[in-house]
Amino acid sequence: MATNETPRFVSGIELAGAGGYDQLRVKQYPYRTPDANEIVMRIKFSGLNFADLMRRQGLYSPVPKFPYVPGFEASGIIEAVGSNVSHLSVGDRAIAFASDGMWADIVTLPSHQCFKMPDTMSFEEGAALLVNYITAYQILFEFGNLRPNKSVLVHMAAGGVGIAAIQLCKTVNNVTVFGTASAAKHSIIEDMGCTHPIDYHTQDYVSEIRKISPQGVDIIMDPLNGEDSVRGFDLLKPLGRIIYFGAANVAASGENRSYFTAFKTWLKCFATNSMSILSTNKSIAGYHLGYLLKDLDSTKGSAFETVNELFRLYDEGAIKPQIDNIYPYSKVGEAMQRMHNRQNIGKVLLRPDDDDIKKIGEKE
Amino acid sequence: MATNETPRFVSGIELAGAGGYDQLRVKQYPYRTPDANEIVMRIKFSGLNFADLMRRQGLYSPVPKFPYVPGFEASGIIEAVGSNVSHLSVGDRAIAFASDGMWADIVTLPSHQCFKMPDTMSFEEGAALLVNYITAYQILFEFGNLRPNKSVLVHMAAGGVGIAAIQLCKTVNNVTVFGTASAAKHSIIEDMGCTHPIDYHTQDYVSEIRKISPQGVDIIMDPLNGEDSVRGFDLLKPLGRIIYFGAANVAASGENRSYFTAFKTWLKCFATNSMSILSTNKSIAGYHLGYLLKDLDSTKGSAFETVNELFRLYDEGAIKPQIDNIYPYSKVGEAMQRMHNRQNIGKVLLRPDDDDIKKIGEKE
Repeated sequence: MATNETPRFVSGIELAGAGGYDQLRVKQYPYRTPDANEIVMRIKFSGLNFADLMRRQGLYSPVPKFPYVPGFEASGIIEAVGSNVSHLSVGDRAIAFASDGMWADIVTLPSHQCFKMPDTMSFEEGAALLVNYITAYQILFEFGNLRPNKSVLVHMAAGGVGIAAIQLCKTVNNVTVFGTASAAKHSIIEDMGCTHPIDYHTQDYVSEIRKISPQGVDIIMDPLNGEDSVRGFDLLKPLGRIIYFGAANVAASGENRSYFTAFKTWLKCFATNSMSILSTNKSIAGYHLGYLLKDLDSTKGSAFETVNELFRLYDEGAIKPQIDNIYPYSKVGEAMQRMHNRQNIGKVLLRPDDDDIKKIGEKE
Repeated sequence: MATNETPRFVSGIELAGAGGYDQLRVKQYPYRTPDANEIVMRIKFSGLNFADLMRRQGLYSPVPKFPYVPGFEASGIIEAVGSNVSHLSVGDRAIAFASDGMWADIVTLPSHQCFKMPDTMSFEEGAALLVNYITAYQILFEFGNLRPNKSVLVHMAAGGVGIAAIQLCKTVNNVTVFGTASAAKHSIIEDMGCTHPIDYHTQDYVSEIRKISPQGVDIIMDPLNGEDSVRGFDLLKPLGRIIYFGAANVAASGENRSYFTAFKTWLKCFATNSMSILSTNKSIAGYHLGYLLKDLDSTKGSAFETVNELFRLYDEGAIKPQIDNIYPYSKVGEAMQRMHNRQNIGKVLLRPDDDDIKKIGEKE
């Protein structure tokens, strides 16, 4: 080292390779000084997303080269800013997103990926906002073109994106929301604004929706894929649109991936082409925040606009992230299993351990 | 006949089967008295659409059983109304659409397919409005979700739908319009509001657009299909959408269809599925007014809203249908050849012949 400073290290959870929870382990790596356009944030909470589960199973791209530190989003306090950064100052309460690297105690990242939080927003809410609400917002208002008097089907309606979607639907006049969730979660999603909760364990959502709306629905948010991608397309009204934004049906519910499950999902997924789709008067879209984040230079305009709109809606009380549970990094496996089992209602968060991160991969 | 009335006959152009212009011929058929929910309109002008050319070549569905009278739209004067009809009266200047049957001198049809024209709209403009402007409007504002500061690629920009699209883009703040047309038509489409005319005979539209906008475009209206469907998808920005609404590349430019041309177009068309599209952050849609018209009961709400909005824009001077040429029914073959050759600028209209229709299918 050319300086006299003691080298500083930060901690994160590293994913060593595709596989089970034992692939997640503590890592310490050198602190990186911010360049002129970067900031440093000390993390309070970071978000767990379904995409993290699929990445761990090796079923999600883009995947950085192993080993790497996962994590798309976090809240925290600004510790340092580069000389060109004007919209953030040391001490600011902030939230940030990235294509990876956020499951750490300290991150250094480009300032345009970081936003000063509204004063009334808690760190927990902040860590739960970006991925779920940007996803739901852009699906509903960019691809979905949601307007008054439309109907929307939200799968996994009690999950992080599901609750964000329900809240955002309620910001538009007279939108009918069909939401699938297990029966125990129905009263919660009804309170959020879901018009018709459907128990996917005991009811067929297509026939339930047809009973209420024989013509089908205008917009479907589909994180499931596989056979649901076909059923959804068929369920659309004329001029309807389905937005695929995941493939939860691909992910085995256990710790490791199942090629059989993944293959079945591929075989059953909805296929079309520019000639066949002509006569349908329908639209399909793919939404993938991970790739948008990789290409931030071209999309930061849209992300900035969306985040500002979300802050405005938060200040109005129109949206409020719902926190399910908070796990220390050392319990990330338990946190993941909770999501795999679809036990969560709202967002699962992670936080730096109180002491050193040392229990990763251990089972209790 | 149970009555003493002389049976009344109306005239139309019948399409006997798929093929060349000789398949089009005069037909006289009995006048049909309107039921309680129908109206009778004496036609002034009817519209010719690219879909009519493809139907004649047998390359467009839905095709009614041969023989039938084609024609999707017309303007005229109301001659009779059923007892339940309140929004139209005898003597009203009106426009109407249908899934077929409008190339006639008199039509009887459901009143919800018929609209009273704005006072200042000519019969020629009226006959040119419905198919082209509903198509362009629903593509841009339903599937396209057009908003300020977006960019749009309009193929065949000097055609009926193309001009409608350019005019509608200009109703939104700061929209960039790329339009393909032969060089001779550039000054006209520029006057209409096309920002960047591109001569598809001498320039590659993809590289021309990339020069101006390296990121690509937000919305593509694609009536071509085939290899252009793939090039268009690739040209989309993140969160961009392409709307396929025809397959002009399928239609041979001659009088009869070419299976070779049709087959080549199919082979080259853009194919995807709900898994592959996930990572693209793009959307594809199919728009087909013919099928929407077949299913009017479910879509009449949307059509009514759109027509009312178009009337409002017409009254404001924001849109104005551009008439290319008017042919008597007996010259429908010539009219079609003009469209096949892409010679038209704006809408080609047909009108009942001054005397009996007798020259159909003859060549001069």
